[in-house]
Amino acid sequence: MNDSPSGADRRITVICGGVGAARFLRSLIRVVDPASITAIINVADDMVLHGLSISPDIDTVTYTLADAIDPDRGWGLREETWRAMEALRRYGDGDWFSLGDQDLATHLHRTARLADGATLTEVTAEIATAWDIDVTLLPVSNDRISTHVTRADTNEELSFQEYFVGQQHGVPISSVRFDGIDAATISADADTAIRTADIVVVAPSNPIVSIGPVLAVPGVHDALAATNAPCVAISPIIGGEALKGPAANMLAELGHSPTAVGVAELWSDLVDVMLIDDADAALSQGVAATGVVPYVTDTIMASPERSARLATSTLSAAQLRNGPIA
Amino acid sequence: MNDSPSGADRRITVICGGVGAARFLRSLIRVVDPASITAIINVADDMVLHGLSISPDIDTVTYTLADAIDPDRGWGLREETWRAMEALRRYGDGDWFSLGDQDLATHLHRTARLADGATLTEVTAEIATAWDIDVTLLPVSNDRISTHVTRADTNEELSFQEYFVGQQHGVPISSVRFDGIDAATISADADTAIRTADIVVVAPSNPIVSIGPVLAVPGVHDALAATNAPCVAISPIIGGEALKGPAANMLAELGHSPTAVGVAELWSDLVDVMLIDDADAALSQGVAATGVVPYVTDTIMASPERSARLATSTLSAAQLRNGPIA
Repeated sequence: MNDSPSGADRRITVICGGVGAARFLRSLIRVVDPASITAIINVADDMVLHGLSISPDIDTVTYTLADAIDPDRGWGLREETWRAMEALRRYGDGDWFSLGDQDLATHLHRTARLADGATLTEVTAEIATAWDIDVTLLPVSNDRISTHVTRADTNEELSFQEYFVGQQHGVPISSVRFDGIDAATISADADTAIRTADIVVVAPSNPIVSIGPVLAVPGVHDALAATNAPCVAISPIIGGEALKGPAANMLAELGHSPTAVGVAELWSDLVDVMLIDDADAALSQGVAATGVVPYVTDTIMASPERSARLATSTLSAAQLRNGPIA
Repeated sequence: MNDSPSGADRRITVICGGVGAARFLRSLIRVVDPASITAIINVADDMVLHGLSISPDIDTVTYTLADAIDPDRGWGLREETWRAMEALRRYGDGDWFSLGDQDLATHLHRTARLADGATLTEVTAEIATAWDIDVTLLPVSNDRISTHVTRADTNEELSFQEYFVGQQHGVPISSVRFDGIDAATISADADTAIRTADIVVVAPSNPIVSIGPVLAVPGVHDALAATNAPCVAISPIIGGEALKGPAANMLAELGHSPTAVGVAELWSDLVDVMLIDDADAALSQGVAATGVVPYVTDTIMASPERSARLATSTLSAAQLRNGPIA
C-alpha cells in the first residue's frame, strides 16, 4: 500500500556505532514509524569498569532516542549529577572515565541482569522499553568483544576507552584489534533483522572502530550478503574530516584515504549506495570507481529539518542501487 | 611506662560486627590512642550486588570512625543523595537495598581493586586511610563467606541481606549457615593482631550473625586460644532485648537464652569477663555459672560521656580475668 520514498512500513535495519548513528536514528524516526526500524549496535567499546558492565554505544543510542542525552556533552544523561564520581576522588579513582549518578543506574541494572544470566540482547530490550523507545535496539552480538589500539609512538596497546577517553584520541595509532571477535557470533535477532530488512543503512559512525567491529562479527557479512535489500551508507567523513571524533585520523593512520572514497573502498563489497556531502561532490567519481553509487546531498544533521531531509534522502537513495537515475 | 586502666599504649584488638561495634570503637578512641586499636571485622554480610562488592560491616565501622555515618539512618553516609537508586526504579530494580551516590564510590573502588587482584585486607586499609582513620581495620578473612538463614515458617533459605534488609528481620528463623566458611582462613594480619594483643574485646554486636561468623572462621579460635591477653566481651543483650536489630529474637529462635547469660554460654570458652548492663545485675550469678566473670555497669552508649565510660570500664574489666576483685 505504501511505497513512498519516505519508507513507511519498510523494515529498515541500521548498522550503528554511537553518536553519529544515534543522531541519524533520531532523524529517521521523524520520517518513518519507529517500530519499522531495527538498530544493530556496536559492542566492541563495551567494558567492565569498577565491576559494572558498560555499553557506551548502546547507551548513547538509547539515551538519544529517549531524548534524554545531554546535548552539550553528547554522551550520558541530561540533568546529570556526579556525586559518586566526586566521592571516588577520595580513593584516587575515576579520573579518566566519568559515570553520572543516573547513568550508573543503567550500568547497575545491566550488570545485575547479566549476572542473572540474561543476554545483552534481553537487557538492551529491557532498557529500551524502560525508556519507551519503539525502535528495536539490538547488540550485534551477545559475546564479549573489545577494541584495542596500538599506539604508533610507543607501541603500547590501549583499550579503546583508554585511547578514546583517557587519551582523548590524541595519539597516533598503528593498528586496531577486536579482542574476542573470532569466537563471537552475530546474535540471532541481529541476523534476522539483516536478512529480513527491506533497506539496510550503514549509519555515519566511525568506519574503523564503530562500524568496523560490527561488520567483522562472524555472521554479519554472511547476513548482509544474503539479504536482497539495498544497502545505503552515509559517509561519516566530510571534506577529509569527521564531524566528531578521530575517524579521519584513524583512517589515515591505518593507510586508508581519509575521505569518502576511502570509506567507500572499505565497504565496497557490502554497500550499494553511499551518501556523500555536497562539499565532497568532486569525490563522486572516486566513490563510483569503487563500485559504490554516490549520492551527493546535505549530510550535516545541524537542525531537525536538515536531519529529517538526510533521513528521507537515505531512503530515496536505496532506489539507486543499480546506478544513478539518469 | 603506662599501665593505667585507660589502656593507653596497650594493644587492643576488637572483634567486630557493624553498628554496635562501630559505636564501641568510636567510644574507645576517646579514651585510648586510636593507633593502639585493631578492629577485626565480620565479612559474612558481604555481598555482590549489581556487580559491586559490598562490605556492610566494614563500611559501617569505617564511616562511623570517620564521623561520616548518617546518625539517623545508622548506616551509609551523611548528606547522602540517592540519584542512582531513584534512576534504578525506571528499570524496576533497587527496591530492597539502597546505595547512596557517595556510598557507591566506596563499592566501586573496592570492586575495581579486588578485580585488580588486591586483597580485601589491602582495600580495607586503603579506604580507611582515605578517611584518615588511625584504627587498624581488618577483615577477619580475605575469603568469601556469606551468611544465609532459613525461615522457620517457609523453610526458605534467604541471604542475610534479604533477611535483614529485605524482610526487615521480621520473620522467624530456624538455622543460620555461613557459606564458604570451611574453606576460609583467618587473614594473616588478623591472626597476628589477636596473637599479639594485650587485650581482646568482643564488641556488643549480634552474637549469631556478626560475632558468630568471625569466631567461626578457621584460625580465629586457635589465635584466641593462643593469646595470653584477657578477653572481655560486652553483652549486646540488655533486659532480654538487643538495643538494635534481631539479636535477641535470633538467640531465642536458635534455642539460646535471649539474655546476657545466653550470650555468656555461647562465648564461655573464649571470653574471660563480660560486661553486663546494670539492668541485668540479677543475671550476674548466671553469667558467673558459665565460667565468665560478670562485670555489671552502664553499657548503654547514649551519650559521649556514657560511651567513654563504657570504653574505660571495658579496659578495667580486663583486670578481672581471674575473678572479681574482693
